[in-house]
Amino acid sequence: MGELTITRNLTAAGCNAQMELPLQSLVRDIIDAATGHANQLGFGYARLIEDGNAWVLSRLSLQMTRFPQVGECYSLTTWIESFNRHFSERNFEIKTGGGEILGYARTVWVAINIATRRPADLTALTGLRDSVSDRPCPIPAQGKTRVPETFDSQVSYIVVVSDIDSNRHLTTARYVELVVNTLPLGVYDRCSVSAFEISFMRECKFGETLTVSSVRDGSTVIAVISDTEGNACCIAKLVLAERIAGENAK
Amino acid sequence: MGELTITRNLTAAGCNAQMELPLQSLVRDIIDAATGHANQLGFGYARLIEDGNAWVLSRLSLQMTRFPQVGECYSLTTWIESFNRHFSERNFEIKTGGGEILGYARTVWVAINIATRRPADLTALTGLRDSVSDRPCPIPAQGKTRVPETFDSQVSYIVVVSDIDSNRHLTTARYVELVVNTLPLGVYDRCSVSAFEISFMRECKFGETLTVSSVRDGSTVIAVISDTEGNACCIAKLVLAERIAGENAK
Repeated sequence: MGELTITRNLTAAGCNAQMELPLQSLVRDIIDAATGHANQLGFGYARLIEDGNAWVLSRLSLQMTRFPQVGECYSLTTWIESFNRHFSERNFEIKTGGGEILGYARTVWVAINIATRRPADLTALTGLRDSVSDRPCPIPAQGKTRVPETFDSQVSYIVVVSDIDSNRHLTTARYVELVVNTLPLGVYDRCSVSAFEISFMRECKFGETLTVSSVRDGSTVIAVISDTEGNACCIAKLVLAERIAGENAK
Repeated sequence: MGELTITRNLTAAGCNAQMELPLQSLVRDIIDAATGHANQLGFGYARLIEDGNAWVLSRLSLQMTRFPQVGECYSLTTWIESFNRHFSERNFEIKTGGGEILGYARTVWVAINIATRRPADLTALTGLRDSVSDRPCPIPAQGKTRVPETFDSQVSYIVVVSDIDSNRHLTTARYVELVVNTLPLGVYDRCSVSAFEISFMRECKFGETLTVSSVRDGSTVIAVISDTEGNACCIAKLVLAERIAGENAK
C-alpha cells in the first residue's frame, strides 16, 4: 500500500525522433502512477469529489540519467513523502525492467475545490497520513525558478481541442510539449534532457491565446507560458546533457 | 498467431474533455496493436529492416458506436485480411472488458524502402500469406474522399519537435489531432465521432509549414493537410453523431 509500481513497454509508435520515451510521455506516466496510487489508497478522484475537491499537479521536477529506449520495458514506482492540510508531496523512481535506475521525480499535488478553484482542506483525509513513506528520494527538492528579464524567443499558441483534458483545461503533458518545442529537433539529436522542472500558476482554457517565451543559457532553457494579460500560467526549466562527449550543444 | 489482442485501461490523464478516449489515442492504440502483431508474426520492424524496408500506414477508417470512457477497460483485436506484394490489409475490433463491441477499424499498410521512400516488394515474406485470416470485418472498405473545391477554414501549422516520430516524420496521431482541431470544443460536447477515415499521400518533416483546410457539411467534416507547394499530405473525413436526441450539432 505504501508504494505503487506501474510498468510500461515503449513501442515504436510511442517514441520520439531519438527512439526514446518523450519527456511529455514520461510526465503522463508520472500522473498515471500518482492517480493509480491515490485511487488504491482510497483518496483518489472518487473520494475527493465527495467533498467537491480534486487533485491538481502544482509542481514537478525530475532528473534522468537516460530515457527508456524503443522496445524497452520500464517502470515507475511512487510513494508519498509528506502530506499536510493543503498539499501532498509524492516521489517517483523510474527504472528499466532489468533494474537499471533511469531517474527520479518529485511532485507536489494540491487539492482544490472544483467550483471555486481555491485550495481545499484535506484534514478529513486522515488515511493520507498513514500512507506517508520514509523512503528517501535522491534528487533535491525543487527550487524556485525566477522569471528571466529577457527572452530569446516568443511564440503565440492558441489552445485547441486536443490540448484539453478531463478537467477541461490545457493538459499537463501539453505544457511540457510547449516547453520541449522551444528548441529545434537537432538539439535533441545532440543532447538529452537531464533535468526538468515545471511549476503551474494558472489553468488555461480552450481557445485562449498563450505566449511561450524562452531563453537559453548554455545547457539550460527557461520557458514561461503566459496569458494575454501577461500573467504567467507556468514556468519551466529544462537542462540538456550532451549525448556524445566532446560535442557542445549549440 | 492469427490474431493479437491488446488491452488498455483508460485513466483520467488519458481522457479528453468528454471523459472519453480521444480519437488520436485510439489511432495510436491501433498502430500499437498492428506493430505488436507484425512483430509476433516475425515480419515486424526487425525483419523488414533486414531488406531496408519499413511498414508505413497508408489508409485508416473506423466506425465507433461509442468511445471507451474514463476508468473503462477496453481491448483491440487485430487480424490480417489480405496481403500482396506491395501492401497488407489489417482489421481491428474494439470492445470493452465486458465484451460490448465499441467499433471496428480497417487499415492498409504499405512497405516502403526507407532510403528511397518508394514501395518495397514483399514477395519474400511468404509467412505473411499464411497469416491471412478469414474473419470478416463488418464495416465497408474505405472509399475515396475527393478534395473539396472550397473550404470554410484554412489554418497554418508549423511542425514542431513533439510532432516527430521514430521515422523522423510528423506522427500519425498528430495528423489526426490536426483534423480533430478543425472543430471547436463545444461540438465534441454535443457530438461524438461516429466514423473517421484518413489517407496519407506525403510525409511531413520537422519545421515544415502546413495548411490545414477544412469544410463542414452537416455532420461531415472533410480536412486536407497540404504543404507549402499545395500538395496534399493527407485527406480525412470525420463524421459526427449527436450525443443526445433532438439537439442538432451546430
